[in-house]
Amino acid sequence: MAGVWKNSGRLADGREIIYFDESPGLGRAGVPDSRRPPPAAAEAAGPEAAGPEAAGADAAESGLRWDPLTGEWVVIAAQRQDRTFLPPPQACPLDPSAPGRATEIPAADYDVVVFENRFPSLRGAGHAAGAVPAEAVPAEAVPAEAVPAEAVPAEAVPAEVVPPEAGLGAGRPAYGRCEVVCFTADHDSSFARLPASRVRTVLEAWADRSAILGAMPGIRQVYCFENRGEEIGVTLHHPHGQIYAFPFVTPRMRRMLEAAAAYAARTGRNLYDDLTAAEAADGTRIVARNEEWIAFVPAAARWPYEVLIFPARRVPRLTALGDAARDGFGGLYLDVLRRLDALFAAPLPYVAAWHQAPAGVGQGHEEFGLHLQVLSVRRAPERLKYLAGTESGAGVWINDIVPEAAARRLREAG
Amino acid sequence: MAGVWKNSGRLADGREIIYFDESPGLGRAGVPDSRRPPPAAAEAAGPEAAGPEAAGADAAESGLRWDPLTGEWVVIAAQRQDRTFLPPPQACPLDPSAPGRATEIPAADYDVVVFENRFPSLRGAGHAAGAVPAEAVPAEAVPAEAVPAEAVPAEAVPAEVVPPEAGLGAGRPAYGRCEVVCFTADHDSSFARLPASRVRTVLEAWADRSAILGAMPGIRQVYCFENRGEEIGVTLHHPHGQIYAFPFVTPRMRRMLEAAAAYAARTGRNLYDDLTAAEAADGTRIVARNEEWIAFVPAAARWPYEVLIFPARRVPRLTALGDAARDGFGGLYLDVLRRLDALFAAPLPYVAAWHQAPAGVGQGHEEFGLHLQVLSVRRAPERLKYLAGTESGAGVWINDIVPEAAARRLREAG
Repeated sequence: MAGVWKNSGRLADGREIIYFDESPGLGRAGVPDSRRPPPAAAEAAGPEAAGPEAAGADAAESGLRWDPLTGEWVVIAAQRQDRTFLPPPQACPLDPSAPGRATEIPAADYDVVVFENRFPSLRGAGHAAGAVPAEAVPAEAVPAEAVPAEAVPAEAVPAEVVPPEAGLGAGRPAYGRCEVVCFTADHDSSFARLPASRVRTVLEAWADRSAILGAMPGIRQVYCFENRGEEIGVTLHHPHGQIYAFPFVTPRMRRMLEAAAAYAARTGRNLYDDLTAAEAADGTRIVARNEEWIAFVPAAARWPYEVLIFPARRVPRLTALGDAARDGFGGLYLDVLRRLDALFAAPLPYVAAWHQAPAGVGQGHEEFGLHLQVLSVRRAPERLKYLAGTESGAGVWINDIVPEAAARRLREAG
Repeated sequence: MAGVWKNSGRLADGREIIYFDESPGLGRAGVPDSRRPPPAAAEAAGPEAAGPEAAGADAAESGLRWDPLTGEWVVIAAQRQDRTFLPPPQACPLDPSAPGRATEIPAADYDVVVFENRFPSLRGAGHAAGAVPAEAVPAEAVPAEAVPAEAVPAEAVPAEVVPPEAGLGAGRPAYGRCEVVCFTADHDSSFARLPASRVRTVLEAWADRSAILGAMPGIRQVYCFENRGEEIGVTLHHPHGQIYAFPFVTPRMRRMLEAAAAYAARTGRNLYDDLTAAEAADGTRIVARNEEWIAFVPAAARWPYEVLIFPARRVPRLTALGDAARDGFGGLYLDVLRRLDALFAAPLPYVAAWHQAPAGVGQGHEEFGLHLQVLSVRRAPERLKYLAGTESGAGVWINDIVPEAAARRLREAG
């Protein structure tokens, strides 16, 4: 591969922005954010400016809430009601800036760029004050090494959130970090249409952010994902994904860790090794594979179309992927995405979710098997799967599409 | 209350139908199902008759699948792709039958009626052969006591499904039972517009079915719920709910039982008693209450509008509700539903889910706190909450609406 050059700067309101360039010396991080007043200051002007639902009292009550009935954290994020909703193409905040049009990305072009979400559900990680400063800070570009995780005093941020002692009551600050990852400066593209070399750059960005965010005090889970399609609530069409740094191990990850531990206790073996070996041997649910990766529909697929993509050699986290695996990912993932898009007349709405072991020094779980889960709610050309009583109420997924038939259709597509 | 008279019959294809009448001697269960060929036989005519997605091979592969990654069962139900989808009002299968128009309900009128779903995700429970017989059986009405659970030979049905020994692979038959509950013969009504006396009849039907289905061999969880609104995929507008008899403890219930056990271990107290007492004392999230019931927005609400309704005196199951609680339920629940419908210009789409302790003799869990959860995906007049990357991928719910604000709006509504 050609290499990735990383440079970091600050937006006018203090948020960090990191460019992952495919060639050196472009100086993009040095381009200042010209917005006056800065975005966060404009928001602070008052609820009227932000929209009818932005009650100040509501926003103040945002945070983590412990659900004593299920033993899980829930995030209350009132301020997100006001986030940018399907802007016209000429107002896309994820385009590069142009003369007379300042966006979230000050530079005139970019390859892959990551920045802190303007409407974060979780905030504070990586900022010494525990939050993005409300006042504007100078928009000077700073080199990446000027904002290392270690610069954050440990006493200023909480350790992993723990449930309230009594099991009821008190919330917690919504500590963590939410970042946006733009995959291309081309507003009208999509992940499936990226060149493989760009996918490699995106993978480098995911791995880099997993390392940086995972080393921040109090962060227990780094979660990289992409939402695609208005059908699942996407509010910006520009090709982009998100990264959440959670202060707790997420519920699905907790269940996965428990299931893998139970499997190991019962069989003395590794669940992910056995699962991928069994799928490779069986073959009926395989969608695509190469030397480094295998993609299959899970036998117990919850979603009409769902594909799991595992590296051939198990690693617990994105950071642990070797060069060969990183090189081999793009070709396979693009093949899978193009097959998904070929299923119906229109591009498929999907969620693509990287599941990696919990973050943090000494957290272990080296036995976990990193994988990417791609799921879609579309079950027929004009029909979506809705989560209704069995799923939303009881947690039982009912899937209309037989997994082996889904795999066959995907093999035949494209 | 005036009393409920229960009578049971069979539809032309062998499915059971149970009338819950508000007056005696109506003879509705004696009205034969005039459909020739019977509905199930018509389906068996071939996939062409049932729709383009009805591949016979797919249907044969329906069943329970064990998800080794999360340790949860998933239901594959290919045959449901063909279920009745938003029929015109004059073709509603849940209306009473009329001259020249035979529906699922042979009688010319009904109060509350329950029958086995024609497109079940789970099947076999209550039928000695382990499945609804494919051939037509005479549509003679039989008295309720002729089809007791004990009539099913225990050896003909599976015990609770257990995960595959190795933790991978083999599916299981989709054993269980799916029933439809029609709340009123009035096609254009809704639950919120029922009289309180009818709600009492519905509650009697839920409790009756919980007892009957919960006593069937192999059933571990009886789940009564209502889906309302096209926004969550409802395919029939006629006011109705559903009952699923699962052969396993559902994932949400398993988590609830674990959380309650952990709370008891930590505090020596009952989670549900403490939770309802804390909510009553705090008051900020209370929506409505009477002598017998309390309705509040949970502090960690996952959904934009979510209400939990607990009886004032904890019971583990619907069957354990006393007369006073049964009498008091309708007034409170109707009040809550009307407030929910008053939030926006249009009726609110919602899921209403009864959470009750696992079924089966000797299963215990007498410490569980029966409650009704009402949740809605509507977060603003023109906006729904979608489950995207954080929810579908990581299991972390992010809620835009502060629970205390939701409770205040509900108190002020209506």
